Formats: sequence, C-alpha cells, structure tokens
Amino acid sequence: MIDLNADLGEGFGRWTLTDDDALLTVVTSANVACGFHAGDPSVMRRICDLAAERGVRIGAQVSYRDLAGFGRRAMDVPADELAAEVAYQIGALRVFARAAGAEVAYVKPHGALYNRTVHDAEQAAAVIAGVRLADGALPVLGLPGSRLLAAAADAGLIAVPEAFADRAYTPEGTLVPRREPHAVVTDEDEVVRRSLALALDGAVRTADGTSVAVAARSLCVHGDTPGAARIAARVRAALDAAGVEVGAFA
Amino acid sequence: MIDLNADLGEGFGRWTLTDDDALLTVVTSANVACGFHAGDPSVMRRICDLAAERGVRIGAQVSYRDLAGFGRRAMDVPADELAAEVAYQIGALRVFARAAGAEVAYVKPHGALYNRTVHDAEQAAAVIAGVRLADGALPVLGLPGSRLLAAAADAGLIAVPEAFADRAYTPEGTLVPRREPHAVVTDEDEVVRRSLALALDGAVRTADGTSVAVAARSLCVHGDTPGAARIAARVRAALDAAGVEVGAFA
Amino acid sequence: MIDLNADLGEGFGRWTLTDDDALLTVVTSANVACGFHAGDPSVMRRICDLAAERGVRIGAQVSYRDLAGFGRRAMDVPADELAAEVAYQIGALRVFARAAGAEVAYVKPHGALYNRTVHDAEQAAAVIAGVRLADGALPVLGLPGSRLLAAAADAGLIAVPEAFADRAYTPEGTLVPRREPHAVVTDEDEVVRRSLALALDGAVRTADGTSVAVAARSLCVHGDTPGAARIAARVRAALDAAGVEVGAFA
Amino acid sequence: MIDLNADLGEGFGRWTLTDDDALLTVVTSANVACGFHAGDPSVMRRICDLAAERGVRIGAQVSYRDLAGFGRRAMDVPADELAAEVAYQIGALRVFARAAGAEVAYVKPHGALYNRTVHDAEQAAAVIAGVRLADGALPVLGLPGSRLLAAAADAGLIAVPEAFADRAYTPEGTLVPRREPHAVVTDEDEVVRRSLALALDGAVRTADGTSVAVAARSLCVHGDTPGAARIAARVRAALDAAGVEVGAFA
Repeated sequence: MIDLNADLGEGFGRWTLTDDDALLTVVTSANVACGFHAGDPSVMRRICDLAAERGVRIGAQVSYRDLAGFGRRAMDVPADELAAEVAYQIGALRVFARAAGAEVAYVKPHGALYNRTVHDAEQAAAVIAGVRLADGALPVLGLPGSRLLAAAADAGLIAVPEAFADRAYTPEGTLVPRREPHAVVTDEDEVVRRSLALALDGAVRTADGTSVAVAARSLCVHGDTPGAARIAARVRAALDAAGVEVGAFA
Repeated sequence: MIDLNADLGEGFGRWTLTDDDALLTVVTSANVACGFHAGDPSVMRRICDLAAERGVRIGAQVSYRDLAGFGRRAMDVPADELAAEVAYQIGALRVFARAAGAEVAYVKPHGALYNRTVHDAEQAAAVIAGVRLADGALPVLGLPGSRLLAAAADAGLIAVPEAFADRAYTPEGTLVPRREPHAVVTDEDEVVRRSLALALDGAVRTADGTSVAVAARSLCVHGDTPGAARIAARVRAALDAAGVEVGAFA
Repeated sequence: MIDLNADLGEGFGRWTLTDDDALLTVVTSANVACGFHAGDPSVMRRICDLAAERGVRIGAQVSYRDLAGFGRRAMDVPADELAAEVAYQIGALRVFARAAGAEVAYVKPHGALYNRTVHDAEQAAAVIAGVRLADGALPVLGLPGSRLLAAAADAGLIAVPEAFADRAYTPEGTLVPRREPHAVVTDEDEVVRRSLALALDGAVRTADGTSVAVAARSLCVHGDTPGAARIAARVRAALDAAGVEVGAFA
Repeated sequence: MIDLNADLGEGFGRWTLTDDDALLTVVTSANVACGFHAGDPSVMRRICDLAAERGVRIGAQVSYRDLAGFGRRAMDVPADELAAEVAYQIGALRVFARAAGAEVAYVKPHGALYNRTVHDAEQAAAVIAGVRLADGALPVLGLPGSRLLAAAADAGLIAVPEAFADRAYTPEGTLVPRREPHAVVTDEDEVVRRSLALALDGAVRTADGTSVAVAARSLCVHGDTPGAARIAARVRAALDAAGVEVGAFA
C-alpha cells in the first residue's frame, strides 16, 4: 500500500499553476499551498472543498514567505519566526479543511524549505516546533534520512518518508541535485516504471545503473509542470493495475 | 458592567506601533491584528501568550489585505474573496490563541473594513460569512446600527455594540466623520469623562451640547496614538473608581 | 493609421499569464505591468528587451498595489499616495526600458484604476500627478471622455483615446459594464470585424444595432485570455490587409 | 575629509522607524530604503525632497524583497533575479530624486544583502550587475575588503569603503559578528571617540586593545535605534569641532 501526494492549489489571485481538478481525481494526499509561496484564501477554500468531497487527505504545504520566488529561495529565518510562520499557515488552512468537514491531516514543507530542512537541523527543528505549536500530533512528510523527519520523530510525530518517481537517485539513496544533468526524469514511461519499482520493490535504479533501496510510504507526483496531471494519472493507473493499494498513509 | 477593548499587535516585523504590554494591563478584550494590515506570526503569538496569561479575551481584528495602507483604504473585494480572507485570518490567529490555552473569542473588523461595513450590506454579509466559515458562533464587535451588527444578528451571532470615548457623536448617535473638525476628542480629561458617561449613563454629550443615548457593551480605547496606553489606563482607573465592573462581554 | 496595444508581462515569479512573445509580434504598444498588480523585475526586464528588439513601444501599465486581486479591486487610495505609487512604478520600468535602449513612452492605468479614473476626478488627477512627478511629458492612454484623459489634457499631456474591439458599446459610446450580458464580444470573427470598423470608420455597432462614433488613436487587444494572442494576430492581419497603417501613436 | 552616511526612510505605510528629519540635519549621505525591506513611495518622495533641500546626497539602499524580515534574512536569490531587483529599486528611487532636483548618487546594499555580499562573490556580482543595469556609473558603498567592493572595482565603478563607529573590529579589520558579546558599542562617548579615531587616524582600537587600520571614506551612523539621531549629532559635532571636513565623497 502506498500514498500518492501532489502539490495543489499553487495559484494566487488571477494566476493558476496546478491542474487541481484533475490531480484531485488521482492523488490520495493533497499538499495544499497556504498563502506564503502560493495559495490565496479563495483557492485554499476551493481545494479543501474538492478534496473533502473526493475523500482526498488534506495536508499543509508550508513555505517561506516568498511569493515572488515561489518559496524556492532558501532564507535564513530565525527559528522562532519560522516556527510561528509554519503554525500560522497550518491554522489558516485548518479553517477551510474543517469548513469542508475534513481536517489538516499532515504537514509537508515546500520548495526551498523542504530542501533546506534535509540538512539544516535548526530550521528542521523550527518547522517541527511550528507543527507542534499548531497541533501536537500531525504527521510530517519528508525525505528519508532528512533532518526534518529526524526532528519529527524526536518530537513524537509520525515521520512519513516519501519518494520521487521523476527524480534521479544517487547510489546512496539521495536525490541527484537539480543542477546536474538528468536530475529530472522526463520520459513518461520511465516515470511510470520507476513508480512501480518504488511501490512494489521499495527500490529504484540509480544513475549508475545499480539499484538502491528507498523506503517510502508516499510517492510524490509533481503537479506544476505541463502534462503533470496526465503523468500522475498514468502512475495511478499503473499502480492500480499492478494491484498496489493506493491510499493515504495511516 | 462594561468591556474595554483596544487594537493590539499592530506591528509588523521590525516595526512596532501599539504599546501592547501596557495595554494588556488595562483592557479586557484584545483585538489582535492577524497579518493583513499588521501583525506578523511572531507578534500574534506573543500577544496571545500575554493575553492568555493576563486573562484578557482574544479577538480577531480582521482587515482588508493592505499592509501598505494599514487596512485604511476601502477596497471593492468580491464577497466570496472577502469571506475567505476573513476566515483565513481567524484561523491563523486561532492557532496562537489555542497554543496559549485560550480561544479566539470574537471578531472585529479593522479600519476601512470596519467603516465600510457600517453601510455596505454586501461586505457586511461577507464578513459574517467569513466568521461563520471559520466557526459558527463567534460574537462580532461593531458600531450600533451598523450593517455589520445587523448581519451578525441575522446569522444568529452575538452582536456586540461598542462606543468610542474619544470620538465626537452626532445627535443621531453616529460618529462625526474624521475629516470634520473636532471629530476626535484629544483632551484626556474629556475622554475620561465621556468614558464614565458612556459606561454609567449609556449616553454621551454630542457636538451641539445635547445628550444622545449610546447603548454599548464595550468601550474602545485607541492603542496606536502617542499616550494611548496612558489614556487607556486613566479610563480604566476612572471606571474602577466609579464602581463600574470592567469585564469581557459575556 | 492606428496603434495596437495590449497588456503584457502580467506574470509574477513562477506564474505566467500573457503570451508575451506572440503578442510582441503583433502589437505596436506594450503596456508593461510594473510590479503592483503583476510583473516582477525579471519579467519587466525581459519584456523591455524583447519590445525594444522588435520596435514595440513600451508603456507603463500602472496599478493599485494589489497582487492578490490583480489590481481589479478599486481602492480608496489618498491622492498623494496614489501619485507617489504611480511615479514609483514608472521609474522602476524606466530602468529596464533604458537598459534595452528604449524609453517608457506612455502610461496606461490597469484594471480597477483604469475604471475608477473614468469617473473619479480626484484619482484621475492623482494618476496624472504621478505621471508628471515621474516625467513631465508622457502621453496617457485611456477611455474617450474619461476624467483621466481630461486630467491629462489639463496638465498639458497628450491624451490618447483608445477603443476595445471585444467590448460592447452603448449608444452613448461608453462600454457596456462587464456584469451585463454580452458585455464582452467572444466571437473571433466579430472582434475582427469590429476592429476594422473602429480603425476604418471610427465607429462601431452598439448593442441596439445602431452605430456610434468612437474616436480612438489606439485599439486595445486583450492578452490575458485563452486564444488572446491568436485573436490579436487575426486583428493585426485584417488591419494590414485592409491597408490600415498600424503604428504607435505619435 | 569624511562622509557621514545613515539609513533613512525605513518606515512603511503607517510605521516609522528612523528619525529622518533629525538625521538629515547631520549626515551628508542618505541611504534611502527603496520599498523592498522598507520605504513606501510616499516616504521615498518625502525623504528625497528633504535631502535635496538640505543638500544631502541620496543613495539607493537596495535590499532583498523581504518586508516581513526587514531585509535581514539572507536569501538565495538567483543572480539574474537579484540584478533585476536591484535595478528596479534604483529606478524607483531615481524618480523621486529627480523630481526633487537631485540624483541617485550611489548604491548601498541593506542588511542581509550587505552582509552576504561581503563574502558571496556571485551575489556581489549580481548587485553590481543591477547597478550597471540601472546606470553605468554609480559608486557603491561597502565594507573594505568585501566581495562587493571588489566587484564594483572590477566593473569600473567607484568603490567607497565605509567604517562603523559603533561596531567592534577584529585585529584583521573585520567586524566582530553581532552574535558575539560586545559586537556593538553602546557607550555614546566611546562611539564619538571611535568616530574621531576613524576619521583622523584611519584606525580604531580592536577588541584585544590593539589598533587596526580601517581605510574608510565614509562613516556609517545607525538610524534605527533609540537615541540614534542624538548619537549621530554628537558624532557630527565632534568631527566638526576636530576640524574634520564632513562632506559627501567625491
């Protein structure tokens, strides 16, 4: 059994990015933008209503406060500020989740905050402090081996490791940095194959042709690229056809 | 018995405005800025912690999204957007209130949104829709006779009329517009006298020397002017000395 | 001879809206967003470089400060603030125009500021004050009969009336409000026909079947709808084929 | 002869921080906030008018886009974006400088951008690229030995080294980091003494009691702390009394 998550609601005002309607027919967990890198209140409300209607789990996709950079620029935010900013975003999203009869069920950092908290213990701890400030018991999605998941576990939170079907892995099981060639897998058939390998074997082929174990309870499909919804639907169909139970993590 | 409310937490990042520590020793209800006209997450957290510690009731001071204008510029926000923005702010504040062991106990619009919803039925209804979206049952503070309080009552919410000790009243019981001379009472002794009249007699002297009834369950003292905290303390002391019970509205 | 203008560069950070590359092969005047409703510095720079390369005139599309509302929500901005905000935007754009070897050659208000200054003499005067603050002599694009163009003329600026091929006109020559049915002409052939009528006859058919004179020196084609670039290209081709000289206003 | 510079105009909307009127009677160079960390268009206009009236040189105090963090949080902004953001800010300020009959005469990065470009060659080059984009020939203020000043010199710009009278220096002539004890000199008499030593001797006493040469053409006095204007005035008076010619760098 595996969870399928994607970033949703990444529009803002007049702008749209993610094909939310299509993705919500595919994923089991929706990482909803909370207004700091994307996601205005109207979008958040609409996504929560749709997700609740379709039984998709709602997660808070928390970010640095950076609309202009879409949360992709790492920032040296003091720990106390960062914790408060994370809690603020969770609280804002919770209103719309509850109004839809659902709950904010987990937290996943976005963009540069996600990448930074792989290695930065202080910011990882600050994110977890924010989660705890907002609610004592929300699971946290992140990269296996990240400081973020370690901090979550330390705090008694459920740490949910995730894998990426469209990202190249090193033999050590970490992601090949985006700036390197072939970091992103663009061939759709290959993305589908890798999704199956990750879900069925808990392993994926690395850049040098070997196989590496990736213990993931959730598979992230991207929503912000052209064709993203179509690829996500193919991944979902392939998992279904292979008999993999696709469902939100417990 | 009368409630004493003031706007608090109206700083943002490096900037401060209101003397929050002093005001929190005086008022019984704190209108906390929620990030749209002022109030970053760290400030919100700090005010909620202090208010909870001192037993001061926490209210959401919701605003148009307008940091540059401090929420003082009326905006033609479509009703759906406005409702979602109001709910977003309440939800964000609730996280910090609950983390402090308290609750968001009421809602009061700020600045231009406060003034606009005195007469604008559509925006008044949108604010109330936002309150209901966030929680079915929060009391709403506003001007007696305003569309806002009418919409609150229509929606089954508790409508709390408030009075201003430092604003001139017309013989009809409405506020003299700020653009007119003598709209604001700056003499401290006079502010104290008017506070007593409002609390004890439910009436206040008008610009033309007559008296007009003002049925208020809460008295608003301003926090964002020089000397504001001192005036507020004098008002509180005078009410205490006159045997008026000062406490949060039920 | 007629000018063809469109709004360009209306993306922000990760988000895009207008098909700038295609539109810049069609229009003779580019209304470039300056960061207040859309348009970050990188987008502004790119549009100015492209426009200069293709000989398209650069105009400052100034707006209320309202990213969340895309500048479509009227705001009660005090005149002094509005003038300074308009000047700020022009100055910021000028840097990129000059770096590209061109100039900011005109000013056109965006969205709610455009609509508000049709009737609001104070805000119209404030916009013109902002233009003069930034530079004494920039032409101003607007609706024929608007307060904005009157204020421009009063200030000795060139007032450039424009027409809309895809908007319905009243018998008085004003635009049918968007909230009314048939306010926007969506049939592409009809948009092309109306463009020719406006350019060749200085007149357009009204909603009730009569014809009304519309004296326009520029024709606005929209850039922010699906198919916008294609319609704009058809309009341009039809004007060229009809022997209308399409060129920036003098 | 030495220049005296301070950060000015660091309010935003309703908020004020620096005592601009007092500082403008003291300094010879005003680092004006340009809207990214502080400084709305109305404040920028007012400061430029005052500075021009008093013959104080106007500089663009450019920053990361970070109102919530007052530009004090380092950000990983890609070089192209950063250059465009720097140019945008300079262009916006230039409008108000010219409207006042003056010019933007130099550039100084603010806060985290200042600190980051001491060591980060890529961001330093990006800032200089932004300066050149906005204008080929503006001098740049910075720390002696910084990457920023090196990049300015490489680009043929005038590099103006500055010193801080209220900051402790290491024996190597660099600033003691703020997080260390005694990094900031708070004793007013000591600040005045150090100002004289820097201006007259080109040297200052270090934390370990030795003296270190600091070749500075400008002395920075802080404007954003309580008593800042008074200290600045004392420094100016002491320099005047000592016969040091205080004037803007050439």
